[in-house]
Amino acid sequence: MVETPLLDDINSPDDLRKLNQEQLPQVCDDIRKFLIDSLSKNPGHFASSMGAVELTVALHYVFNTPYDRIVWDVGHQAYGHKLLTGRREKFNTNRKFGGLSGFPNPDESEYDTFVAGHASNSISAALGMAVASDMKKEFPRRNVVAVIGDASIGGGLAFEGINNAANNKNNLLIILNDNNMSIDRNVGSLNSYLARITTSRGYNTLRHKAYKSLKRHNLISESLRGKVLRFNNSVKSLLSSQQNIFEGLNVRYFGPFDGHDINGIVKVLRKIKEMEGPRILHLCTIKGKGYEPAERDPATWHAPGKFNAETGERELIDKEGKPLKFQDVFGNTLLELAKQNERIVGVTAAMPSGTSMSVMQEAMPHRVFDVGISEGHAVTFSGGLAKDGMRPYCAIYSSFLQRAYDHIIHDVALQRLPVTFCIDRAGLVGEDGATHHGAFDMAYLRTIPNMIISSPRDEHWLRNLLYTAQCEDFGPFAIRYPRGTGRNPDWKNKMHKVEIGKGEMLSNGTDVAVLSIGPIAFDAMQAIEKASKENSISVAHFDMVFLKPIDEEILSKVAKINCPVITIEDGTVKGGLASAVLEWFNQHGYVSKVYSIGIPDKFIAQGDMSNLYRYCGMDSESIYNIIIKAKNDNK
Amino acid sequence: MVETPLLDDINSPDDLRKLNQEQLPQVCDDIRKFLIDSLSKNPGHFASSMGAVELTVALHYVFNTPYDRIVWDVGHQAYGHKLLTGRREKFNTNRKFGGLSGFPNPDESEYDTFVAGHASNSISAALGMAVASDMKKEFPRRNVVAVIGDASIGGGLAFEGINNAANNKNNLLIILNDNNMSIDRNVGSLNSYLARITTSRGYNTLRHKAYKSLKRHNLISESLRGKVLRFNNSVKSLLSSQQNIFEGLNVRYFGPFDGHDINGIVKVLRKIKEMEGPRILHLCTIKGKGYEPAERDPATWHAPGKFNAETGERELIDKEGKPLKFQDVFGNTLLELAKQNERIVGVTAAMPSGTSMSVMQEAMPHRVFDVGISEGHAVTFSGGLAKDGMRPYCAIYSSFLQRAYDHIIHDVALQRLPVTFCIDRAGLVGEDGATHHGAFDMAYLRTIPNMIISSPRDEHWLRNLLYTAQCEDFGPFAIRYPRGTGRNPDWKNKMHKVEIGKGEMLSNGTDVAVLSIGPIAFDAMQAIEKASKENSISVAHFDMVFLKPIDEEILSKVAKINCPVITIEDGTVKGGLASAVLEWFNQHGYVSKVYSIGIPDKFIAQGDMSNLYRYCGMDSESIYNIIIKAKNDNK
Repeated sequence: MVETPLLDDINSPDDLRKLNQEQLPQVCDDIRKFLIDSLSKNPGHFASSMGAVELTVALHYVFNTPYDRIVWDVGHQAYGHKLLTGRREKFNTNRKFGGLSGFPNPDESEYDTFVAGHASNSISAALGMAVASDMKKEFPRRNVVAVIGDASIGGGLAFEGINNAANNKNNLLIILNDNNMSIDRNVGSLNSYLARITTSRGYNTLRHKAYKSLKRHNLISESLRGKVLRFNNSVKSLLSSQQNIFEGLNVRYFGPFDGHDINGIVKVLRKIKEMEGPRILHLCTIKGKGYEPAERDPATWHAPGKFNAETGERELIDKEGKPLKFQDVFGNTLLELAKQNERIVGVTAAMPSGTSMSVMQEAMPHRVFDVGISEGHAVTFSGGLAKDGMRPYCAIYSSFLQRAYDHIIHDVALQRLPVTFCIDRAGLVGEDGATHHGAFDMAYLRTIPNMIISSPRDEHWLRNLLYTAQCEDFGPFAIRYPRGTGRNPDWKNKMHKVEIGKGEMLSNGTDVAVLSIGPIAFDAMQAIEKASKENSISVAHFDMVFLKPIDEEILSKVAKINCPVITIEDGTVKGGLASAVLEWFNQHGYVSKVYSIGIPDKFIAQGDMSNLYRYCGMDSESIYNIIIKAKNDNK
Repeated sequence: MVETPLLDDINSPDDLRKLNQEQLPQVCDDIRKFLIDSLSKNPGHFASSMGAVELTVALHYVFNTPYDRIVWDVGHQAYGHKLLTGRREKFNTNRKFGGLSGFPNPDESEYDTFVAGHASNSISAALGMAVASDMKKEFPRRNVVAVIGDASIGGGLAFEGINNAANNKNNLLIILNDNNMSIDRNVGSLNSYLARITTSRGYNTLRHKAYKSLKRHNLISESLRGKVLRFNNSVKSLLSSQQNIFEGLNVRYFGPFDGHDINGIVKVLRKIKEMEGPRILHLCTIKGKGYEPAERDPATWHAPGKFNAETGERELIDKEGKPLKFQDVFGNTLLELAKQNERIVGVTAAMPSGTSMSVMQEAMPHRVFDVGISEGHAVTFSGGLAKDGMRPYCAIYSSFLQRAYDHIIHDVALQRLPVTFCIDRAGLVGEDGATHHGAFDMAYLRTIPNMIISSPRDEHWLRNLLYTAQCEDFGPFAIRYPRGTGRNPDWKNKMHKVEIGKGEMLSNGTDVAVLSIGPIAFDAMQAIEKASKENSISVAHFDMVFLKPIDEEILSKVAKINCPVITIEDGTVKGGLASAVLEWFNQHGYVSKVYSIGIPDKFIAQGDMSNLYRYCGMDSESIYNIIIKAKNDNK
């Protein structure tokens, strides 16, 4: 076990605030040691929190938390915060079933002020808290701090927050944690703008000279401090060929400062803490700071898995002969299709690695568009591309696609534009927990007219669906697939076109009918085999493949068997496959009893997949039990 | 009939382009005359299109439409565009059932490049088209122009578009039509920034002096034209205390120019037309330009209804003794509640008049937050307010709330925060058509855990639900109500708390059971009365009031009647009340046949409400027919 003597005595930020400022660098060292040691054994997000150590310590040192509020944006930078706020000893349960959440979680600690799984929400939420404090006329004045990365601040929601920040009386401090990275390298004009701020040369030496010159000609008055500040920003923007956007939006800008100089940060925080009105403090940090392998390759070390803390060697799983991840089958297939069809382009929202669109991006950089954290734009931009003849494949995680719901309806479906939605992380995702489970996509997409919604059960189906989507002008075409690997090392079939709205019979039977969609078919098959062997129950099993249009031939066949029906889906039971089947049966005058297996109507916390599946009643044992029950109920 | 000799001969933009430039002012006059004459008789959006006449004429004159693309943002500025593109003679069918759409509609004309009912999508869509053109290596080069208002450009989606515009090779021109208005007066820092650009004084006289001064000290070189431009912008920002945000985002900025100087606009468009890369042209216009009453009061004249073209007198309906609009009942009740409960605050996204939150805004300006066109921020901001003890009532139109879907899930429902969603324009809305119908809210909200979803059938229920939402900490609480008036002139009941998840029996019966939600209950009652009188059918009718949690007592009562069930909702039949009822019946082992009445699974065009209701099979006659059918099927 590593020694972290100062950290060991910090059970709450109060303990931290009792320390002398000179001791803070040691606290930072302790936190880094602790994180390296802990995360090398129990994997989690690594590089983000390593880069945020000093700012975390400085914030809790200068501000009176939890009375003052810290709102983290995308919480995987907040591990240091967890260590300082009474969760050091539980940190070995991080991301585990029943353990700590990997993200800030208000149910877990009063220091976690807001949910922080989806990017760019911190400024709006913090503004709400700051305004609430002002309206309640709280004394002492409550400070509210939003901590946001340079990628998250490029999201439309963050812009909307900033655009509104100066409109109300409030006391909002925005900390821009700028490491020029999101999970992958960051993109967008705002990002290159931030890079220009931090690299502009000669600014300090020249501004004084320019200032004196303008003053001599009576173009600027020294009487007002604010004007001088603005003057400085203006000269700076003149010399660095850019402008200060934040000042333009009436948010006072301070920076950039070294985000690893703990004393410097404490000093500037104390200086600007009591100022009125919205302010932004720009700190430059290094993702992975303090751990050399992570500093060198921060994208890999975003979530490195287990590693040897001494050597930095990552515990790589031998992949030879193992099935690929679904995302990799997608990534490789997309490139394959793009080579055949020059109208295909890829669109990703800051997730080239996460979606494996990086495969096509490396081979055809000009045909892949990484638009940064802006799912709404990604979809509407895809709509524009499709309108003028391209075939965009827009790959977004299921839970993040919620951000683009209106854009799917208004900018794609209403116009029947041929955008293929490649919905990764559909269904339960495991350790990332409630904010990341892809629980709702089938339900929220099914209500949209003109949508085709499909889910492959294996790699070959995924490839066939990806292939099919570009064969004809079908309009919007959603293909959802889960996190994790498939089952077939021999994933590279010869692709062929499949019929829209046609599923597949996997087994014939007479006692019970199972309708599944997606890879959960295999859990169903296991259960069916057991029920057959141990209980001699004869189960018909159909992989629906398409949620919309639904396969009416299968449904009418099943209805005629006149036996109990079980629907199985890795998504919420409210509004997805279960509802679709019930609606069809009812509409066509059938009265089969339907047992629906899926994610229950509540938010599901983090955990390993087998625990989560069992918890949700979606593992093969639970499916087996329902088969037995269905058979018995029907006696 | 007014005389519009030049316009009469323009059947497509080709005809316009054959005119001499000197004739363009006359074309503009003709368009204005036509719009005044036509819209005084057949009401529609008025002031926006009046303000956009010159820029519309200039765009079609300078650009080679439809080969070049014009993408309108929020299409009610596009009437002039419709007149110039072959739809002059059909314009008297504007917004009517089977007639022209009030918004650009690609199904209607090749000149309408994209759907434009929800704000801020033009830049992203246009960028997609511009990139598509570049990838297809089209010759001649295709120009793509997005026309966006100063309110729409403050939306997060527009920012995401701009932030990505400079990232690709493209040829995008953004026209900022800046009239300092959305429907109501515009808000937000970006807006005050735009106002500062246009009003900064002394800029032209001073910049030359400053420039010479800096040059003398060798701080700037004249060699590069670009640097001089940037220098000018910098000095300008110095002197006007602001910065050029667009240049900061790598979009070349030109302006501001007078948006009513047709020759000036044609000149600048020709100058910047062939430039490479993304550009923004800032035009200052006057909403309602050319019609004095509208210029004086542009908010009222946004959509004035019928009026006397000569006198400007609006045809006001005598409201004495008539029922209020639902939105007005909401607005007045919110103020009433806010007076009793100091924790209540109002949040609206650029719709104080449209939602009648203006009532509270006028009485308590500091407790109402108009956040501009930013529905996502409105919801997350409400989450922050609720987290720290306030009781936000967030009023957003149903179809616009789609923009905030993830924010409802992640920033409110997951944390069970007590935000009351006041969902106006729920259900069919009539003349605004497909982009504005509130068809999906019940279906997309029902899949979200922790949500309470309700819909009052009349004014008293609306008030009781608004009252109830703040009685206890229920978590997220949605109250949906339609466009238009209620039925009860005596709307102001004494409010009382209602039980969550409890509906109401409206009539008892044994042959057929009707379950309705919302004001469509009254259409059902009419049908039920007719069925009773003419066919002696005994119908039980229940107003569910709550979609979630659903009233299980009513459902089990209905199930026991053991008769056909009809569900009636002013929302999509996929995923809403019909699905909820089927799920419950199935789960509890009942097999009642359910007939579902609601908006069918397709996009519904514009039209008057009675035609739309009939078209969707939701009018009382259709309901009556289903009652008869249900009874007969059950014989």
